[in-house]
Amino acid sequence: MAQGRPFELQRLHGMGEGVYREVLRQHPQQPCRVYAPVGQHRDLLAYLVRRLLENGANSSFVHQLADESVGLAVLLASPMERAHAFAQGEAGPLCLPLPPQLYGPHRPNSLGLDLSVAADRALLEAAWAAVRLPDIPEFDIKNLNKSFYTCVSSYEKWSSLPVGERAEVMRRAADALQADLPRFCALLVKEAHKTWGDAIAEVREAIDFLRYYALQAERIQQPIALPEVAPEVFTPPGFKGWGLTGESNTLQLRGRGVWVAISPWNFPLAIFIGQVAAALVTGNVVLAKPAEQTPAVAHAAVALLHEAGVPNDALQLFHGSGETVGAGLVALPGIAGVVFTGSTQVAKLIQRALAAKDGPIVPLIAETGGINAMLVDSSALPEQVCDAVVQSAFRSAGQRCSALRLLCVHEAVADGVIEMIQGAMQTLQVGDPSNFATDVGPLIDVEAHAHISHLVENIKKNVHLSLINQAQAAIKNIFLPVLIEVSDVAQVGEEIFGPVLQVLRWGPSCTGLETPHALIAAINRLGATRVGSAGYGLTLGLHTRIDSRARAWAQAAHVGNVYVNRNMIGAVVGLQPFGGDGLSGTGPKAGGPHYLYRFCTEQTLTINTTAAGGNVALMA
Amino acid sequence: MAQGRPFELQRLHGMGEGVYREVLRQHPQQPCRVYAPVGQHRDLLAYLVRRLLENGANSSFVHQLADESVGLAVLLASPMERAHAFAQGEAGPLCLPLPPQLYGPHRPNSLGLDLSVAADRALLEAAWAAVRLPDIPEFDIKNLNKSFYTCVSSYEKWSSLPVGERAEVMRRAADALQADLPRFCALLVKEAHKTWGDAIAEVREAIDFLRYYALQAERIQQPIALPEVAPEVFTPPGFKGWGLTGESNTLQLRGRGVWVAISPWNFPLAIFIGQVAAALVTGNVVLAKPAEQTPAVAHAAVALLHEAGVPNDALQLFHGSGETVGAGLVALPGIAGVVFTGSTQVAKLIQRALAAKDGPIVPLIAETGGINAMLVDSSALPEQVCDAVVQSAFRSAGQRCSALRLLCVHEAVADGVIEMIQGAMQTLQVGDPSNFATDVGPLIDVEAHAHISHLVENIKKNVHLSLINQAQAAIKNIFLPVLIEVSDVAQVGEEIFGPVLQVLRWGPSCTGLETPHALIAAINRLGATRVGSAGYGLTLGLHTRIDSRARAWAQAAHVGNVYVNRNMIGAVVGLQPFGGDGLSGTGPKAGGPHYLYRFCTEQTLTINTTAAGGNVALMA
Repeated sequence: MAQGRPFELQRLHGMGEGVYREVLRQHPQQPCRVYAPVGQHRDLLAYLVRRLLENGANSSFVHQLADESVGLAVLLASPMERAHAFAQGEAGPLCLPLPPQLYGPHRPNSLGLDLSVAADRALLEAAWAAVRLPDIPEFDIKNLNKSFYTCVSSYEKWSSLPVGERAEVMRRAADALQADLPRFCALLVKEAHKTWGDAIAEVREAIDFLRYYALQAERIQQPIALPEVAPEVFTPPGFKGWGLTGESNTLQLRGRGVWVAISPWNFPLAIFIGQVAAALVTGNVVLAKPAEQTPAVAHAAVALLHEAGVPNDALQLFHGSGETVGAGLVALPGIAGVVFTGSTQVAKLIQRALAAKDGPIVPLIAETGGINAMLVDSSALPEQVCDAVVQSAFRSAGQRCSALRLLCVHEAVADGVIEMIQGAMQTLQVGDPSNFATDVGPLIDVEAHAHISHLVENIKKNVHLSLINQAQAAIKNIFLPVLIEVSDVAQVGEEIFGPVLQVLRWGPSCTGLETPHALIAAINRLGATRVGSAGYGLTLGLHTRIDSRARAWAQAAHVGNVYVNRNMIGAVVGLQPFGGDGLSGTGPKAGGPHYLYRFCTEQTLTINTTAAGGNVALMA
Repeated sequence: MAQGRPFELQRLHGMGEGVYREVLRQHPQQPCRVYAPVGQHRDLLAYLVRRLLENGANSSFVHQLADESVGLAVLLASPMERAHAFAQGEAGPLCLPLPPQLYGPHRPNSLGLDLSVAADRALLEAAWAAVRLPDIPEFDIKNLNKSFYTCVSSYEKWSSLPVGERAEVMRRAADALQADLPRFCALLVKEAHKTWGDAIAEVREAIDFLRYYALQAERIQQPIALPEVAPEVFTPPGFKGWGLTGESNTLQLRGRGVWVAISPWNFPLAIFIGQVAAALVTGNVVLAKPAEQTPAVAHAAVALLHEAGVPNDALQLFHGSGETVGAGLVALPGIAGVVFTGSTQVAKLIQRALAAKDGPIVPLIAETGGINAMLVDSSALPEQVCDAVVQSAFRSAGQRCSALRLLCVHEAVADGVIEMIQGAMQTLQVGDPSNFATDVGPLIDVEAHAHISHLVENIKKNVHLSLINQAQAAIKNIFLPVLIEVSDVAQVGEEIFGPVLQVLRWGPSCTGLETPHALIAAINRLGATRVGSAGYGLTLGLHTRIDSRARAWAQAAHVGNVYVNRNMIGAVVGLQPFGGDGLSGTGPKAGGPHYLYRFCTEQTLTINTTAAGGNVALMA
């Protein structure tokens, strides 16, 4: 089979001995490895169970050999041919969609690059060599009214386009972004100090937002004939339909007007484009203010959207500080809504500024912070927990609103789990994000570094400190991942937006935290400012091998996104609609089926169809 | 056929002469009338068109007689037998649903009473004789926190019931309200001074709200498996579905917590129950404050809901003033949302009170006022316009938020239309609402009467006054319907919540109002407080015989509910979702498919289904 090409043969100890003997007889120098599972019984049990599951599968050779209903032709069919047929898209026995078709024929999945493939890395290296950060001038606040009126004047035309045309503009932008992925990745690494892996995921998310909202807008902005009757209702032959005769009633969703979109530096492309695309595709026009730290990414995104067909006046970029430009935009009397992602404190300021104005009460969509917990019981798989914790707490240097902040481990397994996490932390590569090997890059800027250093110093004074990773790094604003053990939920008072993980033990010997129920109640109150008021509720990780328990805990948690037996970051558009409860935001969830409603206003149109003298429909 | 029973025979002049001759020969004293259309050619033309449409219908005898494909058996089939078969629910040739089945098998239509039927009136008379208004004590504000905590404590249990159980409670309440319709009508006439016709419509609306929201909650609170792929997408045989393998993602909508519901006196039953049912059925608990003027209706509604199965703590009634009890409720730190119907000014106060508090940004659903216009062009049918205007402006003494305030008539037809409306106004019976003949009852209270009198006096000083109906009435707080001609949209500055209609001419000779486009732009600005800020946008009437024009005007109007060639009041639940734009409210529309989303929070649950060691689903 090798036909002269180099190869290596591997077999599990105790199996396939005849094949080895034959190969080694003919090619004594051939590399032939024997591998064997090594470990204690608790490791080997899991391995054994997996082997049993594989061999027990209906499709396994061992199983089929004993099955008299499986003929020789099926048994001996070449797996190569089956794989080939599958790759050609023919309905094979597995018949699962390939990754690009994961979301059905109406929405192509975004494509990434594989950092373990040299050719893919080369694309990024070339983009990195070419990329320059342009100087984006700050917006002069005295031109605000003028910009607003040009935006208003673009509204009528853009909002009266058929929704399909606006959706096509978003799809063109998505395709252009897909084609230009390496350049946008390089921009993200350069301006936002993202690792390459994070950058690729972010560009993909932006592409997904564009395509997902395009599809959702086409769905919800079709006129709805009323009354709606469930499609499964039986309608007898010849039946003319439920509802009134002599009157038509339709409900139509339309844009609201000029939106202000204010986005953060931690997802300067994905959240920026998500907000803007949601507003635009539903027929609104947008004044967009990106974070001060990341204007170049936003500038490139706006250029891409203009190129795809969004009129220049209908999407305008405002670079500047929140205190001047952001506040000025929110205070404009005629805006139809604000979509904001950022801190809970700034969201509150925006709410108050909107309320202070006279005029209509306009929607505020705010997606804010979280003190996100992970709850681990004694049945959880430690390796899985360790993987999930390290990714959730330290990836992107902890600068995700979804990042894990408080790990709650059952006391029976806490020692082992914490030790394993500490070990994994030692292997993290912290440093220059433009290096492909880097796992954890720097914080966004020197202010963030000073702020988080200060918070961690304060915690150190008050709590038992398990471990601070003391290694140093050469690049600026690096904050080394840190794990701190605390003894009470009350010690965790605020969101620390960096690679800082606090760990808490729970169980029968922990006063106030004896049961998972008590723990979830405490998690629900995290960050609450007053008795009776809700706390944060953004993400929650659950690790348990008892399925019913995971569901009951999810039900009890006032939290927007619950992840079971995996990491708790990286919500995927359309799969994991994202956004929280209480202090973590207003909803609706971004990347979910209910998001676009909030960008729309509804009009009911009732027509007396008998006004001409009779109901012509009945006579037809 | 009469078999001795008394009868009267009628025929159209020029038809059926033989039948008459024969009857009169046998019964010379038998009443036999001949009727004939009388009028000018413009009236008779419409009559003639209607006759032609009727005779031209495929199902008409005349048409079928000439149709060779229609056999003798069909032609001579007894219409009595066809009607009988239809009443039995058999699929007849018309095959239209009967009124109770109008909304399909999952939601029975509410039933009313027919005021022209003596037996129906007798039910209301008996209820009227029996009804007494109980004294509802004002809530003592110092018990507010205690009430709040009992409400909070009821949340967990009520919100974790399956949505179907909560929906069943609402349906039981609907059935109980249907059975008790006469008593609730009598309460509405007594406490809210409604006419009987208005009272019946309101009880029906409340029943519809209960059943509609029950069905909608069952629809939206099912877990949604993600990714959603449009059902029309072709899935090949054996196909395992789109989406990821190895992970399940579901989106679940749940209640948010304790809601404050503040409702108005003009629909003290329907809006009160609509707000409360929407919050309860989605798993929230409710602190409900009805208008000060109508506590007895609210008290009866709460008793009905408790009786149907809503726990006492989960729905609590707070009678008292807006300034004390209402403000106290809104200021509670832990409330999860406010649903309000009332004035634009009070909605603004609530928005500011919510923003002033620390803690989460919670939803405010506000449905407020409107300066509602009707636009009549020269092609409109004057009789239809007149009917629609009198109903829209004066029914319920103009005390509906949807009521017509500004009639805009094209100058070419204005004289005739205004004259016809004035004539129709003279025929309105204004007075005691408990009298079945009354069309227009009194204003809600003496303060409203004084306020509206003052506003109208002010208008009189400044504008040309076409007509003030000067007749007097014996009952207190009666305000006689009035029509005032104004010459400029700018003269219409605020909502006058009574039977006061302002009329404006538009057309080529009217500066600033030459075109319908200019007129709609002016209507969109009605009530706007600042340049660039939106005005009111609740209801709009359009009267034109040109269908494409009606649709274009609806598109241009920033208005929530548009009615073409009919009146513009009385939105029906599920058919005409109700609520406005700009100063008229926040949306979503009450009685529409998107209302309940705002009462819910969303949770995404992501489960790694391979955590046990492999993806079992793939092996099955």
